[in-house]
Amino acid sequence: MDRIDSLRELAFEKKGFDAFLVGNEKNLLYLTGTPGAFCLLIPKKGESIVYVYGVNYQQTKAEAKGFKVELVKAGEKLTERLAPQLKTFKIGKLATDSLSYDYYHLLAKGLRGRTRLNAQGGLIWQLRRVKDEKELQLMRKAGKITSVGMHTAYENIRPEITEIEVAAEIEYSMRKEGGWGTGFETIVASGIRSAYPHGGCANRKIRKGDLVVVDIGAVYERYCSDMTRTIVAGEPSEKQEKMFAAVKTAQEKAFLALKAGAKGKNIDQIAREAIRNAGYEPYDHGLGHGVGLEIHEPPMLGANSKDKLVAGNVVTNEPGIYIPNFGGIRIEDTVLVEEGKAEKLTRGPYTLEAEK
Amino acid sequence: MDRIDSLRELAFEKKGFDAFLVGNEKNLLYLTGTPGAFCLLIPKKGESIVYVYGVNYQQTKAEAKGFKVELVKAGEKLTERLAPQLKTFKIGKLATDSLSYDYYHLLAKGLRGRTRLNAQGGLIWQLRRVKDEKELQLMRKAGKITSVGMHTAYENIRPEITEIEVAAEIEYSMRKEGGWGTGFETIVASGIRSAYPHGGCANRKIRKGDLVVVDIGAVYERYCSDMTRTIVAGEPSEKQEKMFAAVKTAQEKAFLALKAGAKGKNIDQIAREAIRNAGYEPYDHGLGHGVGLEIHEPPMLGANSKDKLVAGNVVTNEPGIYIPNFGGIRIEDTVLVEEGKAEKLTRGPYTLEAEK
Repeated sequence: MDRIDSLRELAFEKKGFDAFLVGNEKNLLYLTGTPGAFCLLIPKKGESIVYVYGVNYQQTKAEAKGFKVELVKAGEKLTERLAPQLKTFKIGKLATDSLSYDYYHLLAKGLRGRTRLNAQGGLIWQLRRVKDEKELQLMRKAGKITSVGMHTAYENIRPEITEIEVAAEIEYSMRKEGGWGTGFETIVASGIRSAYPHGGCANRKIRKGDLVVVDIGAVYERYCSDMTRTIVAGEPSEKQEKMFAAVKTAQEKAFLALKAGAKGKNIDQIAREAIRNAGYEPYDHGLGHGVGLEIHEPPMLGANSKDKLVAGNVVTNEPGIYIPNFGGIRIEDTVLVEEGKAEKLTRGPYTLEAEK
Repeated sequence: MDRIDSLRELAFEKKGFDAFLVGNEKNLLYLTGTPGAFCLLIPKKGESIVYVYGVNYQQTKAEAKGFKVELVKAGEKLTERLAPQLKTFKIGKLATDSLSYDYYHLLAKGLRGRTRLNAQGGLIWQLRRVKDEKELQLMRKAGKITSVGMHTAYENIRPEITEIEVAAEIEYSMRKEGGWGTGFETIVASGIRSAYPHGGCANRKIRKGDLVVVDIGAVYERYCSDMTRTIVAGEPSEKQEKMFAAVKTAQEKAFLALKAGAKGKNIDQIAREAIRNAGYEPYDHGLGHGVGLEIHEPPMLGANSKDKLVAGNVVTNEPGIYIPNFGGIRIEDTVLVEEGKAEKLTRGPYTLEAEK
């Protein structure tokens, strides 16, 4: 309910809206504490109402503490359901989070002449991008589980094992640590596919000398984590070690700059310059992204980012070098931004060498 | 390219559009054969153009066969990039698939006065909902892998094991069969949470006599599968066996009705009636949904469905009974609709009893 109060302050006191209609799945989870709600109406005054279809009605009633929970029938139109409420609460200015084009127009049509709709998803992001203590506890655990998964990767990568077999061992070890699954498709990309930042994971046998980019993320109680290491099957070559040193330096320099008050684009620039100074073409993606209930969320670290970091942001730090038809190296940690410093939520060795 | 040709026929010849702009991730995968494209412009005449950001540029160039691939720079506006193309191709009527409200307006503003935008995502669904032979090959494999995972569930469910430990074994066995991961969060919901259709999977120890709903789905080469069995830890009670028999009968009756030409709402009704006739309150969700690149897609089997099945549809058949504060039973298979019959893509025993 603290989160509802914070949103009320942002949307009603500061922005002058009369109510907030929340429809995004993760926003609903964040605000109600339970998955499966269909939408949430927060009026300026009075009780907030969670609308839910029959399939999730019992669960939502049991888990959405402090909300009025109303059943939506299959085939029932949301607008027909909301219209009387909006009238009761005298809602003239209604804020909403992200809606599809079709849905927005359906809603606008249903409410025409009575209520003005305004997209204000950014207000909920203002809250979600700053993690509270409860969230950080879950994200620390997600980071620990992910770090165990990465250790498993170091233990298993060797010539002749397939990418999918490595993924099997990683995911199994994360589940054994209590993980709730993975926040994105596990990447174990070997050989020249390691030069694709999203190189996937397929039924390919890893060969001796291959670079293998391992990008994984356990979920714990619905919070994500994100970590990458690059591991060589066998002995790393001099060329691979030189690339690795450049990426490692870039990641370290960026880490030292990660603190409250820093600008996303400046931190990206620090890592990018370090790679360029080592004689390589830098990564063709942003240095990092926020992590939380979603694997990609604000704030962003990248050349076009307008974000300024504050304590409580959790972001990735993931520079890389990708050489087409040769291979790629990326190193990534999930990091908590604090005043004057940052804390790594994922931990593991910085080395190309697999465990023997 | 066959898929592009089919879309051209639907959108240009039948509907009179001059071009199609595709932005949905799965639609892009379906049409280009590679993940990671940002958007795709298909003009009535001339080469289709895939637009892609730097992060996926090399991969898309290598994998999007028969397309022109253009790099989009970070921070570049899509409308600025598209406007000259739309002029070159003399595009007056532009079809698009699903766009967010914000993005639609951005695009509409950028193109104002030159091109009319029209949401036509349904046309791509007309193609995607009918699976071709290549797709069915992948979906059969996804179904087989999922069936192996379910066998693992039957081998492992017993008193004292946790839900997450069961998920660990299931997912590990699916990976060992070559699975690309899971299409949705593995559900292992025991005890009274089995009465929630989306009961999740947590660190709970399964108790003797618990109903355990296991709802899983392996992905193979990006195609999903979906299967549920309900398993008792220990000996099933008479009450549990009676519920089970009702769900099993409902699923069998629906399966026999699944064939080209059948209506989604009628098949749902058949299963619903069977459960009601056995003296239970039927499931408060649809009987099933389409499966493909996404885990939930058209066509739908449900009371409000307007869908009529055709050969090549792949749908789930998943009736259930959920008794609050007692538990639930659901049985689900993924099924291919054919002329005069249907084929199960997931296979496994219909029993409440775990393997001893």
